Amino acid sequence: MATMQDVARHANVSIATVSFTINNTKPVSPATRAKVEAAMQELGFRRNVVGRALASKRTRIIALLFPALQHSFSGTVVHFFTSAAAAARELGYNLVLWPISNDAGQTTELTSTGLVDGVILMEVQFDDPRVEELEKSGTPFALIGRTRDPSALTYVDINFEDTLAAAVRHLTELGHSRIVLLDDAVGSRDLEGFGPVGRSRDSYETEMRRRGLEPASFTCEATPRAGKAAAAVLLRNFPQATGVIIQNELAATGFVSGLRHAGIEIPRDLSVLSVGSSAEMAAMADPELTVMSSPSTELGRMGVEALIDQLEGRASELRQELVMCTLEGGQSTGPAATPAH
Amino acid sequence: MATMQDVARHANVSIATVSFTINNTKPVSPATRAKVEAAMQELGFRRNVVGRALASKRTRIIALLFPALQHSFSGTVVHFFTSAAAAARELGYNLVLWPISNDAGQTTELTSTGLVDGVILMEVQFDDPRVEELEKSGTPFALIGRTRDPSALTYVDINFEDTLAAAVRHLTELGHSRIVLLDDAVGSRDLEGFGPVGRSRDSYETEMRRRGLEPASFTCEATPRAGKAAAAVLLRNFPQATGVIIQNELAATGFVSGLRHAGIEIPRDLSVLSVGSSAEMAAMADPELTVMSSPSTELGRMGVEALIDQLEGRASELRQELVMCTLEGGQSTGPAATPAH
Repeated sequence: MATMQDVARHANVSIATVSFTINNTKPVSPATRAKVEAAMQELGFRRNVVGRALASKRTRIIALLFPALQHSFSGTVVHFFTSAAAAARELGYNLVLWPISNDAGQTTELTSTGLVDGVILMEVQFDDPRVEELEKSGTPFALIGRTRDPSALTYVDINFEDTLAAAVRHLTELGHSRIVLLDDAVGSRDLEGFGPVGRSRDSYETEMRRRGLEPASFTCEATPRAGKAAAAVLLRNFPQATGVIIQNELAATGFVSGLRHAGIEIPRDLSVLSVGSSAEMAAMADPELTVMSSPSTELGRMGVEALIDQLEGRASELRQELVMCTLEGGQSTGPAATPAH
Repeated sequence: MATMQDVARHANVSIATVSFTINNTKPVSPATRAKVEAAMQELGFRRNVVGRALASKRTRIIALLFPALQHSFSGTVVHFFTSAAAAARELGYNLVLWPISNDAGQTTELTSTGLVDGVILMEVQFDDPRVEELEKSGTPFALIGRTRDPSALTYVDINFEDTLAAAVRHLTELGHSRIVLLDDAVGSRDLEGFGPVGRSRDSYETEMRRRGLEPASFTCEATPRAGKAAAAVLLRNFPQATGVIIQNELAATGFVSGLRHAGIEIPRDLSVLSVGSSAEMAAMADPELTVMSSPSTELGRMGVEALIDQLEGRASELRQELVMCTLEGGQSTGPAATPAH
């Protein structure tokens, strides 16, 4: 089997240069990298990741703890994952996905294998047992999400506070004042305080009250059928509503269908604004939903960078960043109907 | 740091038992496993995967080459991935996801790292350059999918042949004879012969002719908007159609919306059968689509098992299995309209 010496001789570079190229330990010019890689390929040189890991006590593998909460993977979560895997790869790491529950024991089981250099947590709860467990184990980690008090942690997250305030503003600017929030039942039931739902509801309520409006919210499961049923609940329990903010991506298409079957025309009779969804999922509804789309691609990348900066000692201070959802066109919001009913 | 000896003493079992438990090399009773794991946790024993890998020349990591073709991840692909990751974990392996293109060079780059024991390929083309590359490298692999002639390879795949024949039969039994196939443009353009599209279209045409019916097919991109546009194309180019088989999960909701906007009532005026989709995505359409749902969860697991059987020398013969899509209820197929037009 070819050695590093063979590769260096073949590429006409120093052994150090081969090492820098292989291990990403120092910058190498694209031309040199190409020469070294061509030589490695020609000679069938196998970069022995495992051997290198043993020498450096590093594996260059990071784990994304898989959001087992949402077995029905939404469009948004997919973006988190694909961008995280691509970012890791660009930075010379491999991303392993671990489909495990939000459970401290399973987290320890993972980190105690010595397989991974660090961990990214998703679907973070206000009081997340995994965080304490990771701190105890000494494993570097970053959150995509936030605990109740994340001030001492590395995290990137959606700015739910500003996003919901902007959602309310979008609808009030269109003349709406009776605006109802429909969110995801998982937040209140399966998780003792799931950040996105809790923070969003708080922000919605604060913003409504700040504007002298009465907040009202309800919840449904994350399925199209539950969304359809939620349309009937809305019409029965909130007959005065002219605007709905829905933060439940998988229920949104069904919610819109349910309204149509009840004779409600969107946005003439009711405006619907989908928050934290992917644009692709929003486009599956009829009409296509106006959406404040989740910055998932950006956050997946930022989470990986925040972790790798820690691993490589480049993190001079804690990285803590929030990104807003951005309003994208759609056909489901419009001027409030004249208050006839 | 605690050693295996320490763990054995603490758990009051033999060192061999600790080793079997850690390395999954022999069955261990649940009670014994629990004792050993409790001792490992108490003593802070770190199972050193990396050291073990170097000793055994195995990493117990397998890679799922990520279907870079479908950046808009459909519900179906998600099931493949989650079930594969869970199956790997149960069998004592870790699944890495690699978002790379269907490209031989990148495949070599991956396998030459020595990081993975084996590879699972998805989104297999008829003439897939990755297969030859993997054979050359000596890396064990399994396909979820099939090349043109997969007779010498380990694979699991959807039985597209029987599935499309069953789809045609479902509609003919309801009295349909003018049945059009709408499939995914990716099959004809981005990929020189993508298995699912090519095999399905062949089988659809064969089955139609066998029944003395005239096959007709067209194609659209995999987006809701493209599906909506495809509805107009259908009505213009195939005005006689009473049944449509759609094999394009991401276009299906838009296709149905487009038909509704054109005044077509489903299934009264037109039956629509979605093939190879997930039931969740089919439920997002209005009406909910009758679907022949993809056996994705099953295939993800089978693909992992087929690979690991090879890795562990348990594969006495090539595993080659096909699984059909199964017909699930829905509201979008019904008796053919009386041929009035």
